[in-house]
Amino acid sequence: MVRVEVLTVGKELLIGRTLNTNVHWMGRRLALMGTMIKEITTVDDDLEEISHALSSAFSRRPAFVVVVGGLGPTPDDMTLKGVAMGAKRRLALNRKALSLIREHYARRGMAEIELTPARRKMAVLPSGASPLLNAAGTAPGVRLVAGGTVVFCLPGVPAEMRSIFRRSVEPEIRAKVGRLSRAAVTLKFEGIYESALAPLIRRELQRNPGAYVKSHPRGVREGVSRIELDIVVVDKERTDAERVKDGIAREMAREVTRAGGVVKSTGEGA
Amino acid sequence: MVRVEVLTVGKELLIGRTLNTNVHWMGRRLALMGTMIKEITTVDDDLEEISHALSSAFSRRPAFVVVVGGLGPTPDDMTLKGVAMGAKRRLALNRKALSLIREHYARRGMAEIELTPARRKMAVLPSGASPLLNAAGTAPGVRLVAGGTVVFCLPGVPAEMRSIFRRSVEPEIRAKVGRLSRAAVTLKFEGIYESALAPLIRRELQRNPGAYVKSHPRGVREGVSRIELDIVVVDKERTDAERVKDGIAREMAREVTRAGGVVKSTGEGA
Repeated sequence: MVRVEVLTVGKELLIGRTLNTNVHWMGRRLALMGTMIKEITTVDDDLEEISHALSSAFSRRPAFVVVVGGLGPTPDDMTLKGVAMGAKRRLALNRKALSLIREHYARRGMAEIELTPARRKMAVLPSGASPLLNAAGTAPGVRLVAGGTVVFCLPGVPAEMRSIFRRSVEPEIRAKVGRLSRAAVTLKFEGIYESALAPLIRRELQRNPGAYVKSHPRGVREGVSRIELDIVVVDKERTDAERVKDGIAREMAREVTRAGGVVKSTGEGA
Repeated sequence: MVRVEVLTVGKELLIGRTLNTNVHWMGRRLALMGTMIKEITTVDDDLEEISHALSSAFSRRPAFVVVVGGLGPTPDDMTLKGVAMGAKRRLALNRKALSLIREHYARRGMAEIELTPARRKMAVLPSGASPLLNAAGTAPGVRLVAGGTVVFCLPGVPAEMRSIFRRSVEPEIRAKVGRLSRAAVTLKFEGIYESALAPLIRRELQRNPGAYVKSHPRGVREGVSRIELDIVVVDKERTDAERVKDGIAREMAREVTRAGGVVKSTGEGA
């Protein structure tokens, strides 16, 4: 599997100010492609923390690291400096990035705006990096190859992150992952405990190595235990993925019924 | 500062199935105590990934690591095995944990339930660990000291995580952190760009080292830029924290007004 890691930067994620919806959105996009984020790290707006986290990620040899947050003009925006440290690069003003910033202001009718140090900072990239067009905001995204890893840096503002991800990140990861099909379903059970489900899941995983079968307890209501069961199968061929997924779902539903549980519904997959 | 790290385990967090609300809640609790989570790592239900992430955390010498998720009875629940590997401990059936599980079933009127391997698994802990009462579910929490680090393992079900955190984790971290006061406010500005705010923030941070002043762009509506500015100050004395926070807020509001922006409101802090 193509290893993808994500590094999110920002104190607001650590102090319970902001829910990390960016990794949730990105995780879903990658899962639908047939791959997944393998590790997420979240660190403070701190040079040592950012560079250390990136070096650690490199040591696991991922194909891609997507860094999110900290590309803006304020003093706490220090991601590019931290990435440069982690990738052992120098920082330099990137002419193409500066042009993108100028063009952004021009599109907003502010062609005459002064390029103060805070604004130029968004164009100071690690050496060898390329800027990526940000159609939804000011700070360009950044693409950098370090060792065997492609590093993307995206702004933390969700609309900007999504825009650059769709345009510049997703196509490159998709090309590396190749064509994969994904079949998924979620079953809802009542009246069976997770501990009773466990041996049934174990058997299905033994029969279908590589399939993903995971239960999520949803609490006990009026004395009745409720569980959601996700089944996900990835295969080169859609028909193969669907067939294996359907087989597991049928078997789990039958065994849960036999154990006294009730299959409440079958829904769109995880 | 007392270094606290969190390790969340679960594929559902990586594939965009589940928003990581657990770290958001815990981050807020710790911030209100005057400390913070310094790093969050999220990994897959995979022994190598869990043990590697824990070893990496140990290398940063945190006072506390809180591990969340993967304590249940199903095959993908492998956190305790991964933690044992990362902390170089053996696994063994813990009598006290088994009693807690028996008592849990007894409270639910299921004293006669069979303790199947799946159910006993929740009482198999790393050697030297202590179980923590889970008043909201079956799997006990776990406390373990490894090197200089206290490791807590909590279930991923939010109600269970919160219950054990409040009862067993928070008091120990609070005792280590000591009595700290925290003063916070959020200002809302319109009509000023983040890049214009940047030098003002820089000046306030230079004047007040240790204060936290961070802007969050909230988009442009009808051509007007909107920004939220968080100011947080932690000090031993409440009056000192409040005074510094109020001073920064007053200064920022004055400078933003001078730069042509509008202070829309002042709210409860981050």
